[in-house]
Amino acid sequence: MRLLSFRINDERHYGIGTTEGVINLGRRMKATTLRDAIGEMDHIRAFENVPVDHSWDSISFDLPIADQHRLLCAGLNYHKKYPLGGEVKTPKQPVYFNKPPGSLVPHNGELLRPIVSVQLDYEVELAVVIGRSGRHISESQALEHVAGYTVLNDGSVRDWQRHAVAAGKNFYRSGSCGPWIVTNDSIPDPSKLSVMTRVNGEERQNASVKEMIFSVQEIIAYLSQIMPLEPGDIIATGSPEGTGGSMEPQVWLAHGDTVEFEVTDLGILANTVIDEII
Amino acid sequence: MRLLSFRINDERHYGIGTTEGVINLGRRMKATTLRDAIGEMDHIRAFENVPVDHSWDSISFDLPIADQHRLLCAGLNYHKKYPLGGEVKTPKQPVYFNKPPGSLVPHNGELLRPIVSVQLDYEVELAVVIGRSGRHISESQALEHVAGYTVLNDGSVRDWQRHAVAAGKNFYRSGSCGPWIVTNDSIPDPSKLSVMTRVNGEERQNASVKEMIFSVQEIIAYLSQIMPLEPGDIIATGSPEGTGGSMEPQVWLAHGDTVEFEVTDLGILANTVIDEII
Repeated sequence: MRLLSFRINDERHYGIGTTEGVINLGRRMKATTLRDAIGEMDHIRAFENVPVDHSWDSISFDLPIADQHRLLCAGLNYHKKYPLGGEVKTPKQPVYFNKPPGSLVPHNGELLRPIVSVQLDYEVELAVVIGRSGRHISESQALEHVAGYTVLNDGSVRDWQRHAVAAGKNFYRSGSCGPWIVTNDSIPDPSKLSVMTRVNGEERQNASVKEMIFSVQEIIAYLSQIMPLEPGDIIATGSPEGTGGSMEPQVWLAHGDTVEFEVTDLGILANTVIDEII
Repeated sequence: MRLLSFRINDERHYGIGTTEGVINLGRRMKATTLRDAIGEMDHIRAFENVPVDHSWDSISFDLPIADQHRLLCAGLNYHKKYPLGGEVKTPKQPVYFNKPPGSLVPHNGELLRPIVSVQLDYEVELAVVIGRSGRHISESQALEHVAGYTVLNDGSVRDWQRHAVAAGKNFYRSGSCGPWIVTNDSIPDPSKLSVMTRVNGEERQNASVKEMIFSVQEIIAYLSQIMPLEPGDIIATGSPEGTGGSMEPQVWLAHGDTVEFEVTDLGILANTVIDEII
């Protein structure tokens, strides 16, 4: 099942995506956002087979979790050249950082290359959406806390990343997420997925989630020691080799580029790049 | 003028604090939270002299911005011994990181020493609350975007801070903020304030905001290049010498400790420490 947040005439909705179109869940449930609803998966499933309310071409995509609570990230989670130079040393635990609200644009949204840097880079990642609260979650129970999975681009401004990790990772509209969340019943084993990026049709990243240094389960267990995870929290699991910063010579995203981020069995998150204008 | 968020019987409110008690603004304004209201300071001021609705002893404090949007922090912003060892090297720009929702407890709230570490430490900081949106804000105009100031404890779990800055800085209920926001008309020059910490009555930190490496204005200008700042965003400006991690021998917060964080002209943020129990 695919769950999404969307807009019609700037009004915010959420629902179920099917081959025929979109079922509007907000009209049928008390929860006003998908973040509020996603803990009630049994209730959502009751509407899985009702007739669709909207055609796909009548909606525009919003971020899957439009009212972001937490967006938690694991960095350096694949063996690769470090985009700031050198090889990644294998970390002893997940390398955690986070992104505040405003960092991401949805499917079909425009990534913003900031006026203060030309070094906007992409990082495709498998992202986990939490569906059930938990703290001190064991690895063996971690997947029971997952509502589903989505595609995330951990957009990074490399020269500002040298100031501090978060500086480069928190730029306004520098990353993206979507188009939807595929529920965990369709993805029994996330390690079997692959992630890839194409820039203007050219493949830049392509790796198996199996290559991750820390598994989805290990990352969930680690982060749940820092804070209780809550429904709607998103966890990005790191990006493999092939970002523009690790190419020789380095290549940055530029105004007019089209970028496709794909995770097998989840879908394609498509964005264009525009220059920030003051 | 002092603005605060508070609870009565677990219902959430916000208002103006006076010597006589608390004026309930939510009953008089459309905005449902102080974050929504804080951009309308002229509207708030219209109620500054109405009779109070609540006595101080009938309310409990909530975080000043109870529905956190962004909590942005500048680290290493005073010359001091680094709590993880060595001296702080003077950074070339503010050292930015952030805290997600859940990191803070309000005035009179209990700081949680996590079960996975004994190294819970305090960091008193002057915090700025944004009142007017802006991007690429100049230093000369920065204070025009400030609604007011509050006291913040950038609680830090030192051994996890070695994993990654955010890991140590994002522990659940490890920091605190409050009791209220003092509006900018009362604080024409934030550099004249002083910050201090007392643990069980013993002074541990005491420094002038003048000693900051980057001023409030410089931090606002820097962060507004990364993202548009929005009303209700909180910016913590760094902590001086005297944290437990830089003492010899190191001293950590422990169950039963009482901690007072004070900023002159703002007030005292008081917390107790309890051990996390699973």
